[in-house]
Amino acid sequence: MAGSVMGEIFKISTWGESHGSGVGVVVDGCPAGIPLTEEEIQPFLDRRSPGQTRYSTPRREGDKVKILSGVFEGKTTGTPISMMVENTSQRSGDYSEIAQYYRPGHADYTFDAKYGFRDYRGGGRSSGRETIGRVAAGAIAEKVLDQLGIKIIAYTKQIGPYVCREEFVSSENVEKSPLRMPDLERSSEAESYLEQKMKEMDSVGGMIECVISGVPAGVGEPVFGKLDAAFAAGIFSIGAVKGVEIGAGFAVAEKTGSGNNDEFYMDAGGQVKKSTNFAGGILGGISDGDDIIIRAAFKPTPSIFQSQKTVNRQGEDITVQIRGRHDPVIMPRAVVVVEAMAALTLVDRLFVGMTARMDRIRDFYKNI
Amino acid sequence: MAGSVMGEIFKISTWGESHGSGVGVVVDGCPAGIPLTEEEIQPFLDRRSPGQTRYSTPRREGDKVKILSGVFEGKTTGTPISMMVENTSQRSGDYSEIAQYYRPGHADYTFDAKYGFRDYRGGGRSSGRETIGRVAAGAIAEKVLDQLGIKIIAYTKQIGPYVCREEFVSSENVEKSPLRMPDLERSSEAESYLEQKMKEMDSVGGMIECVISGVPAGVGEPVFGKLDAAFAAGIFSIGAVKGVEIGAGFAVAEKTGSGNNDEFYMDAGGQVKKSTNFAGGILGGISDGDDIIIRAAFKPTPSIFQSQKTVNRQGEDITVQIRGRHDPVIMPRAVVVVEAMAALTLVDRLFVGMTARMDRIRDFYKNI
Amino acid sequence: MAGSVMGEIFKISTWGESHGSGVGVVVDGCPAGIPLTEEEIQPFLDRRSPGQTRYSTPRREGDKVKILSGVFEGKTTGTPISMMVENTSQRSGDYSEIAQYYRPGHADYTFDAKYGFRDYRGGGRSSGRETIGRVAAGAIAEKVLDQLGIKIIAYTKQIGPYVCREEFVSSENVEKSPLRMPDLERSSEAESYLEQKMKEMDSVGGMIECVISGVPAGVGEPVFGKLDAAFAAGIFSIGAVKGVEIGAGFAVAEKTGSGNNDEFYMDAGGQVKKSTNFAGGILGGISDGDDIIIRAAFKPTPSIFQSQKTVNRQGEDITVQIRGRHDPVIMPRAVVVVEAMAALTLVDRLFVGMTARMDRIRDFYKNI
Amino acid sequence: MAGSVMGEIFKISTWGESHGSGVGVVVDGCPAGIPLTEEEIQPFLDRRSPGQTRYSTPRREGDKVKILSGVFEGKTTGTPISMMVENTSQRSGDYSEIAQYYRPGHADYTFDAKYGFRDYRGGGRSSGRETIGRVAAGAIAEKVLDQLGIKIIAYTKQIGPYVCREEFVSSENVEKSPLRMPDLERSSEAESYLEQKMKEMDSVGGMIECVISGVPAGVGEPVFGKLDAAFAAGIFSIGAVKGVEIGAGFAVAEKTGSGNNDEFYMDAGGQVKKSTNFAGGILGGISDGDDIIIRAAFKPTPSIFQSQKTVNRQGEDITVQIRGRHDPVIMPRAVVVVEAMAALTLVDRLFVGMTARMDRIRDFYKNI
Repeated sequence: MAGSVMGEIFKISTWGESHGSGVGVVVDGCPAGIPLTEEEIQPFLDRRSPGQTRYSTPRREGDKVKILSGVFEGKTTGTPISMMVENTSQRSGDYSEIAQYYRPGHADYTFDAKYGFRDYRGGGRSSGRETIGRVAAGAIAEKVLDQLGIKIIAYTKQIGPYVCREEFVSSENVEKSPLRMPDLERSSEAESYLEQKMKEMDSVGGMIECVISGVPAGVGEPVFGKLDAAFAAGIFSIGAVKGVEIGAGFAVAEKTGSGNNDEFYMDAGGQVKKSTNFAGGILGGISDGDDIIIRAAFKPTPSIFQSQKTVNRQGEDITVQIRGRHDPVIMPRAVVVVEAMAALTLVDRLFVGMTARMDRIRDFYKNI
Repeated sequence: MAGSVMGEIFKISTWGESHGSGVGVVVDGCPAGIPLTEEEIQPFLDRRSPGQTRYSTPRREGDKVKILSGVFEGKTTGTPISMMVENTSQRSGDYSEIAQYYRPGHADYTFDAKYGFRDYRGGGRSSGRETIGRVAAGAIAEKVLDQLGIKIIAYTKQIGPYVCREEFVSSENVEKSPLRMPDLERSSEAESYLEQKMKEMDSVGGMIECVISGVPAGVGEPVFGKLDAAFAAGIFSIGAVKGVEIGAGFAVAEKTGSGNNDEFYMDAGGQVKKSTNFAGGILGGISDGDDIIIRAAFKPTPSIFQSQKTVNRQGEDITVQIRGRHDPVIMPRAVVVVEAMAALTLVDRLFVGMTARMDRIRDFYKNI
Repeated sequence: MAGSVMGEIFKISTWGESHGSGVGVVVDGCPAGIPLTEEEIQPFLDRRSPGQTRYSTPRREGDKVKILSGVFEGKTTGTPISMMVENTSQRSGDYSEIAQYYRPGHADYTFDAKYGFRDYRGGGRSSGRETIGRVAAGAIAEKVLDQLGIKIIAYTKQIGPYVCREEFVSSENVEKSPLRMPDLERSSEAESYLEQKMKEMDSVGGMIECVISGVPAGVGEPVFGKLDAAFAAGIFSIGAVKGVEIGAGFAVAEKTGSGNNDEFYMDAGGQVKKSTNFAGGILGGISDGDDIIIRAAFKPTPSIFQSQKTVNRQGEDITVQIRGRHDPVIMPRAVVVVEAMAALTLVDRLFVGMTARMDRIRDFYKNI
Repeated sequence: MAGSVMGEIFKISTWGESHGSGVGVVVDGCPAGIPLTEEEIQPFLDRRSPGQTRYSTPRREGDKVKILSGVFEGKTTGTPISMMVENTSQRSGDYSEIAQYYRPGHADYTFDAKYGFRDYRGGGRSSGRETIGRVAAGAIAEKVLDQLGIKIIAYTKQIGPYVCREEFVSSENVEKSPLRMPDLERSSEAESYLEQKMKEMDSVGGMIECVISGVPAGVGEPVFGKLDAAFAAGIFSIGAVKGVEIGAGFAVAEKTGSGNNDEFYMDAGGQVKKSTNFAGGILGGISDGDDIIIRAAFKPTPSIFQSQKTVNRQGEDITVQIRGRHDPVIMPRAVVVVEAMAALTLVDRLFVGMTARMDRIRDFYKNI
């Protein structure tokens, strides 16, 4: 695996750099018969695009998605769905300087170390624009999940010291906050904090939480194919992520068994339920029917305007000052990327999991 | 992927339950020409085995590894290495009761939900014994890394509120502590804490840290093949893990760019170095030459002796009291499992990464 | 992929050399709930084993299969099934000579070229014994197919110039012939031919045909995942195979469209049928509901007792005379290997194909 | 694997139908540092394109390739290379009729059986246009091979009863023949034969041979990863292929060991050579340093203008007459597709094979 292909059955292959012709994705393994239009995918990209608020880069690239294949008479055909977004606002001239040195916190140095050189324009393949392909594919994955009664919500859980309170979480509130933090009071405080850091020519980190409801019990494979391992890989593949946790997460380190075990009970409808959800909906790598709860820590944007020490390609110590326009906070735009990665991961695991039982396979083929 | 196969090039396939004939692993893709004996692998298994201290289950299973294939005249042949450990101390009689209900915090319910029934003896495939195959394969992976000058150390970073101080970390100290916490003062305090919890018929959680040194810059692929994503998947596939972080990890949420960016400088030997290592040795998913730092949070052992509420297979609410012998803390034995998963992941990524540059491929084949 | 792992969902990993502790296989991805015993698998291995007739090596190794994991209370659990056959009649002393030179037609030279050295005892990993793992796994795959109403038959189609006539093909006749050629008259003629070649210290080639009936239309993926491509890869992975064809096969080179197109018609039961089956049951890489017909050409056993020219490891031209006991014809024992590879391939493709349509996926999950 | 992704390390993902926006491919895993331009890829597509002679469909689509990503300053960057060819001469109006029935010999019925409906315009995803992505990716693979001193030639070996004589095979002669059959005398006879069949509103089958020279000994993995198995899968994934053979191929069925074994000898340069090449350059699934020889049988184009019996989607027996423009022979245009599939397969196997020996891996990383 050279890196840009993901999935066993619902498989995506993303491509494109910040400053090439465009960016895109090929989705192979999408089932036939799903109604799909560009208009349904576009809102996902719009949530990711820059220029939505003053906390993101103002350049508007008008990322319009085109479906190039795999859809016929408004429905998916089962064959690869190729989608593309053209790069319209390239300004290559800006990048002559950073071609020569390694920006702290960026992948400039490691790309050079790996490949011998790099496409330095706008971060090349390590640019945030790379996530456009993921989000477009994620939009399709969410359509698949929707047909199975599964819903995903993601939002900014934390910015600096400001943590969103659970009781305010709702899809509506997410979009009311320019930071996509549904606790609007905390969001407002976080905005002030962020303004202050922007004045200091600095950036801030934070956390995104993703909640998936409606997943039936039994999804995920034992051992290496664990559902949480798959989510961890998917979410960790997003550029700025430095940590992923499920359910109680890192807090388990200080907990005891009696305080962390979720007790089972039978609900009124005869279903097995848990009275708490410290497990975050996954036991032994397999979904337990409860909400799946994933959190990811995002580092502060490395592009800051303070002067920083670094080295150049000639091997000299230098001091640099990064220019241009950069998001001082990444979470508001990353929310939809987390959602996409969660959806892509889950669809693939749902598909892989269809062969767990011989009786169900037999029924499946009997009905054909 | 049905779950028990891992890796793209250095590929392992583990098998076995707590109470079958044995447990084992097949390693496919191990290079030819590595000296390998059962005696070299055994110490890794010994570190994982129960009965080393009073903080682990006293039953000694004498897990003796046998190499069944892939080694000839003391060296690996390049063909699959099959290894097996027989299950010698099975006591199936103990398990008639737990066959009927779902232990809180265990995978009993989710296995039943997935497969329709389960091998309930000792946890079946979700038993900790499943990790024997990983550790045996990991021992080989560490031999490969050793030949490349790469070293791995893992240790208990935290137990309950007791956190190991960095300055005490060394391989020798790890083995001096019954908890594998190299800060022996903190280890001693954690032991007291653990004793107290054992008296309360409870268990404790904690954290393991893994440090890998000597990895050249340039390992890991962009996008989905990121090195940190691979580590996250590998480590998260260990049963009790609820969180994984790299470098500064979740602390980045409250940091700013100026406080989190690692500045580059040239060292005396003309190498690019970082003055700090908040990145944990990985930038943009690719190793930067610095130490790779991974931490994993482990939940408290779910098998506790207090009475707990749960449901049985007949769908009735019941109260149960788990019996038998169970580790009150999992970290001391899990340290070698984390090490194994890190080694397995890294070897695979090193192998995949050999085709990043045409000039190097050309040199490689020219020298043959 | 390092070579010994096969399959996307129904995944097998084989291991073992001719002269190690044994040979075996791990099957990952077998559905739960299939009744399975060693007694059901053994007959498949018996059909593969030597010493059944005077046309195969007389040494009897008594290849007894053991199931080491993945079966509980007589049924598969959905977790990896590990199976092993011990090597009981190793005679390492025989092989000191061939360690030094490259047998014509064997993989001795290419293994040395690849790995730098080789396990020369009995062919090591390139030994026919390697197929034991395939056959054991294939027996499970045939159980899966059986549950779906799919039957496989394989038999010797040709030996030297003697070609089996289609009208005599039946499972019973296959086992009546020592050559597994169900046309008993041709079989008898082929035996005489073979006896003659044995006297000349020579060996003979031939062809095996495999017919699969009961496969529903719609199995196989377009483009690279074509069902025929999958069969070709699976069958070509058997040691002595030099050609694979489907349906009319190589004869199409001299045919015209009007003579090769199979016309469709509606049968009495309202099913779409073809009046001929030149396609061999596959159109555009997808099964058409008709019998799938695969043929494979097997080269004559390279181990012959005539003196042959070759080179040794010191790079000298030498003349050698191979000793020991070797099958003068491989087809009778290879029939079950072809059957196994066909079954393994088909099960994997059936499983992968379950996600082709959204309506069926929805129904599948609705019924859970 | 849903079908349109191929390769372990050098991985391609093709997309596109006959009548969508276009067709294309994403190549993931191409090494960095290879000079690459659209002008180098275009000639490969031109060899595939229609309208080159009167034996192919006259419509000229002017298939111009665009590189959308992965190339910077004229060299590959190591990140995904996305390439696209727009569909310019779509004539959707032609296809209203064939939407309703199943053309004999085509994949119409099997696509409907699999997906429930199909993009019927021009064959949709089963159209020959799907191979454009393969050929574009194959052009890159051939550049990689060229850097390693490996050459591929493919040509029409047979059309109907006319078989190309080996002594006339050369790259120049291939392009002198409108049928890409380098034996110009036989080519001329085949043309007369073809003209006759065209008058009869019929089509013809044939065979393509592919010879690869310069492959070092040791490429390919044992067991399932055999080099010949990989070639078989790759070549069999081309639409009309009904058989694949290596070296002596199906002729081995009538050969004896003494007549089929290739004897080894030392050449003047101290290299191990074979005095014959019945093996076709592969022994035990691993290259032996000799030319690799692959042949594929192509069925006659199923689109013929004679009236044929078939069924429609309503389940009625009907008689149809296919109209439009269709190649009466596919080999001349398929030659470059075979070449592409061989190149793609070989590059992937060369890359996978770099980790066979620990000493070479150690040297590789020592030199970094």
